[in-house]
Amino acid sequence: MRKVHHRHLRRLGDELAAMCGLVGEAMQRASQALLDADLVIAEKVIADDAKIVRARAECEEHAHELLSAHTDLRAVFTVLHAADRLEQMGDLALHIARTTRRRHPAPVLPELLRDTFADLGQLAVTLANTTEQVLRTRDPELTDFLDSCDDIMDDLYRAVSTAVTAADWPHGVAAAVDVALLGQCYERFADHAVSLARRTSVLSGGKLAASA
Amino acid sequence: MRKVHHRHLRRLGDELAAMCGLVGEAMQRASQALLDADLVIAEKVIADDAKIVRARAECEEHAHELLSAHTDLRAVFTVLHAADRLEQMGDLALHIARTTRRRHPAPVLPELLRDTFADLGQLAVTLANTTEQVLRTRDPELTDFLDSCDDIMDDLYRAVSTAVTAADWPHGVAAAVDVALLGQCYERFADHAVSLARRTSVLSGGKLAASA
Repeated sequence: MRKVHHRHLRRLGDELAAMCGLVGEAMQRASQALLDADLVIAEKVIADDAKIVRARAECEEHAHELLSAHTDLRAVFTVLHAADRLEQMGDLALHIARTTRRRHPAPVLPELLRDTFADLGQLAVTLANTTEQVLRTRDPELTDFLDSCDDIMDDLYRAVSTAVTAADWPHGVAAAVDVALLGQCYERFADHAVSLARRTSVLSGGKLAASA
Repeated sequence: MRKVHHRHLRRLGDELAAMCGLVGEAMQRASQALLDADLVIAEKVIADDAKIVRARAECEEHAHELLSAHTDLRAVFTVLHAADRLEQMGDLALHIARTTRRRHPAPVLPELLRDTFADLGQLAVTLANTTEQVLRTRDPELTDFLDSCDDIMDDLYRAVSTAVTAADWPHGVAAAVDVALLGQCYERFADHAVSLARRTSVLSGGKLAASA
């Protein structure tokens, strides 16, 4: 039994290494496309991203097969995935605070975008609170609400991007860069929240409840 | 046995929810600090990030305790963590390719920064290739090499940030925002690679090998 296990683990390791090869190739091509403004290579990277997503799905499926005799443990995996994403969400809040500190006493935000960032901040907090509810109640309907919050977040982030790259942006380059990176923090915060909530809610409706 | 297990899982879920509460609070405060340029609140977020990092470590420790009877399975967790990070690395290559496509046929990069981005691209590919080697060989010495690559990456990213926010940046705001976001892609790519390689190499030197 243990030998089989280690052989399977080695296969998983090989799958991961192959996936890493795909990622390295994607990065090599993306960088080449960027340097040469090469549309054909850029399109190839974009089309081939599906291979990386599929490789991840297969790797997870095989990992779950190894756990088929340990249904309860899949929940532990989900916990570790969630903890990893939560720490990354914390890092995004940290980045926002550090940017604020770096520019202090000057405000980072121009008055023009203050309301948009107030909305982004409120939405991020709603996402975090709803994710906390998902973790506590495992209510799958809450993930639909999170999806709609994520859509609004994407719209707000687009509005920020449009504002800072508009021809009449009056606040200079450094402010534009700060604001664009801050906007992206909120967008990524939402992506992490949706990813972890989706996995957690699938778990409750599916495997774990069925084995209870 | 199973009952104990579910009680422990519920405790893990509660820990995660509490961690999510900390993250939500951090985001609420960071956003408030950003909106009001409030240094005291920003400092609080920065100081309190250690709580989130500690909560994640405790959550992982408790998850590993649940697996104490299944030492081999910890390797499966590491695989799933690695797959998650690899997919995020793929997303970063995708972002670079999409930015290239969006600006085509204009180059995204001003000539001034072309060499720096050539270095960033080469370093990212080296990081991916070395990570692949770590996954294949589990050689812990390779992680030291990855750390030094990550340091160089940070320096290059700082050089990009400095260039785009310099008073004499001649290429306009939109180019500066693109370039800053692209530079950040490379920096995050390196962070993910180091995170997954470190976990994978710890595994080989420690728990898994000991149980073999």
